[in-house]
Amino acid sequence: MSLIVQKFGGSSVADAESIKRVAKRIVDTKKAGNDIVVAVSAMGDSTDELLDLAHQVTPIPAPRELDMLLTAGERISMALLAMAIKSMGYDARSFTGSQAGMITDAQHGAARIVDVTPGRLRDALDEGAIAIVAGFQGFNRDTKDITTLGRGGSDTTAVALAAALGADICEIYTDVDGIFSADPRVVPRAHKLERVSSEEMLELAAAGAKVLYIRAVEYARRHGVTLHVRSSFNNNTGTIVYNPGAISPYAAAVLNGETVEEPIIAGVAADLSEAKVTVVGVPDIPGKAAQIFKIVAKTNANVDMIVQNVSAASTGLTDISFTLPKSEGQQVLTALTNEQQNVGFAGLQYDDQIGKLALVGAGMRTNTGVSAKLFEALFEAGINIEMISTSEIRISVVTRADTINQALRVVHTAFGLDADDEAVVHGGTGR
Amino acid sequence: MSLIVQKFGGSSVADAESIKRVAKRIVDTKKAGNDIVVAVSAMGDSTDELLDLAHQVTPIPAPRELDMLLTAGERISMALLAMAIKSMGYDARSFTGSQAGMITDAQHGAARIVDVTPGRLRDALDEGAIAIVAGFQGFNRDTKDITTLGRGGSDTTAVALAAALGADICEIYTDVDGIFSADPRVVPRAHKLERVSSEEMLELAAAGAKVLYIRAVEYARRHGVTLHVRSSFNNNTGTIVYNPGAISPYAAAVLNGETVEEPIIAGVAADLSEAKVTVVGVPDIPGKAAQIFKIVAKTNANVDMIVQNVSAASTGLTDISFTLPKSEGQQVLTALTNEQQNVGFAGLQYDDQIGKLALVGAGMRTNTGVSAKLFEALFEAGINIEMISTSEIRISVVTRADTINQALRVVHTAFGLDADDEAVVHGGTGR
Repeated sequence: MSLIVQKFGGSSVADAESIKRVAKRIVDTKKAGNDIVVAVSAMGDSTDELLDLAHQVTPIPAPRELDMLLTAGERISMALLAMAIKSMGYDARSFTGSQAGMITDAQHGAARIVDVTPGRLRDALDEGAIAIVAGFQGFNRDTKDITTLGRGGSDTTAVALAAALGADICEIYTDVDGIFSADPRVVPRAHKLERVSSEEMLELAAAGAKVLYIRAVEYARRHGVTLHVRSSFNNNTGTIVYNPGAISPYAAAVLNGETVEEPIIAGVAADLSEAKVTVVGVPDIPGKAAQIFKIVAKTNANVDMIVQNVSAASTGLTDISFTLPKSEGQQVLTALTNEQQNVGFAGLQYDDQIGKLALVGAGMRTNTGVSAKLFEALFEAGINIEMISTSEIRISVVTRADTINQALRVVHTAFGLDADDEAVVHGGTGR
Repeated sequence: MSLIVQKFGGSSVADAESIKRVAKRIVDTKKAGNDIVVAVSAMGDSTDELLDLAHQVTPIPAPRELDMLLTAGERISMALLAMAIKSMGYDARSFTGSQAGMITDAQHGAARIVDVTPGRLRDALDEGAIAIVAGFQGFNRDTKDITTLGRGGSDTTAVALAAALGADICEIYTDVDGIFSADPRVVPRAHKLERVSSEEMLELAAAGAKVLYIRAVEYARRHGVTLHVRSSFNNNTGTIVYNPGAISPYAAAVLNGETVEEPIIAGVAADLSEAKVTVVGVPDIPGKAAQIFKIVAKTNANVDMIVQNVSAASTGLTDISFTLPKSEGQQVLTALTNEQQNVGFAGLQYDDQIGKLALVGAGMRTNTGVSAKLFEALFEAGINIEMISTSEIRISVVTRADTINQALRVVHTAFGLDADDEAVVHGGTGR
């Protein structure tokens, strides 16, 4: 008997009909002889509706109370899902984050899991019941208060439960068929990955792939949890996200004995959510970069790529560019402007028409020539590269926003990632 | 410093604007130097909406899961209310039934309170915060499951908190000005009662007065809690529901030193929700009535009044009539029909066009002639009495349903209850 953790997002439980469909799917897995723990999100847009309500009451809701409010969302979906399963003749019990033993720190709205004590879930499983757990929520032992895990919290709940219970696999149900070599809406010949390593998945998620949240992947990597990202609209095998050397026999069986030899390149991702700030005319003397990024750090901005040009010998001045989420642009510009006199730079440029392309593959470690091939493909397509940044298993480049889709396609082709057929993009309501 | 428990029903917190209005009211009471614990219901019709959702998923929702589902309602309203108060600069913390220490038995959907351990509420009060508690919900220690208290549960929550905390008064906010000598929509000259004893209130509630739930009044009576039923739409004094000999100084001050001498008659109430069953041609031999009501009891019907006619000497047969809620009529008729051969009665009559009028007053104990006066008033108005039943402080009569409003008015007048002016009926969205 295997223990399977299944996670269903808001779009999978958007209304009573969807809930019944998900219940049937869970019962089918149970019938196949498995123990099952389910992590479920709030129905459809209900979390946003609760947020709206809070903002009608006050522009800045108290964080403790906001968590109390938002956790009502999963309470509703999990209770409905449990009653749907029970009406099909199978035992099911719903558990809040607190009842399921999701112990977190006290950071309301973005709590981190510090311990998982799933005693009640084990009892339920021992008695043959399906355990339904509220995603996204936890409990702090010191304050005895309810917390939420922040964006992507339900994925994290599922992974944390899988780790604590030693599950054979953690299935993440979504509205697409799995992880693709590129976004199939942009690259029609993108292919679904049979498998992707967790470190590649981390880089893909960081580079804009939306299917999985970084935090859940990090948790899975740290705790050796194998994920199966698959569609809630069909029974196809999706993508296995594995930790080399720690793949479970169950996950290996899903992969159908395929040799787990890593391809050089897993996929390519694009991100249009960033902007570029250029600090112009910075005196090229030691400590100036540190001074600038200290100012930026104080705004809590998430700086991504940084490039410093070679100093022009004639002036002794240089330019420093960095990218960050567009939503954080204004606060950083303001902070830098306030300190312009102290730092002594000439001016600021702001560019929100950039796109970032990231090529990800664990095979880069042992293969040379990957960057050369990337740059050549872009050059041949007439696409100009504005910034470059690399990690061990990723190369990112910044281009103009309006060339990013073409860039994705030519790079996808250049690295031999194109499938023979165009991918079928399944509907779903997005998330 | 006084400790005040305030209860706000669903219509008082139906939307963001109402919640802000209630928050201001609570803050005003806090500013006046009081400690405050609030019990709050779910917003407007949200409990019914959750019930609808459950029935879309399954016709018979599992009781444990239904309680889990419904308790999301107060979670939402209490969190919004707490954030509204916090945004006004006062500390407030919301608590679920479980966090507030509302310990119940394990009867899902109709749990009874077995203990109240309000440690967290006391801590909050000690730290100067306003404690907002979810009405209607509790927690069972053995199963560790969430329970609900059933209809009128939020009133009961408020009273139980007031008892456990030794509050000076428990204010029940509603959409009318208090308890009236009769329903002002039917009897325009009904007057608001300054005070009513808890035993009178119990009889009025049992007789159809809708403002307070019987269970909450029973709890208040048993634990010596003084209630103040008042409007959430104005600052008028409402009605004090007191336990003779146990009225708190705070409540006495609300009554403004009026002599607490009980009037003979507190009020008159009507109930159109009952039907009359007549078992015709019952052999007038010992044990037949017992046999009949044993059959009725097995259906769990709530029999109210019972009348047995004098036997006709010529036939040795008698008729037995009783009233019960219309909703329970069909099951009782079926049960009796199934046993007709065994009991040996001739037939059944069912009449759902009856009205019940109840005259309530603690002064009846020491005043004779009350029934005579009642019967005379009805006779003079040409209203026929079909059944009579009395308790120590109540007389109930059954009449035709279409005469009940007229009956209310003539009895109200006959006992000198008419006010000089017509009552102003305040709006409110009902409940």
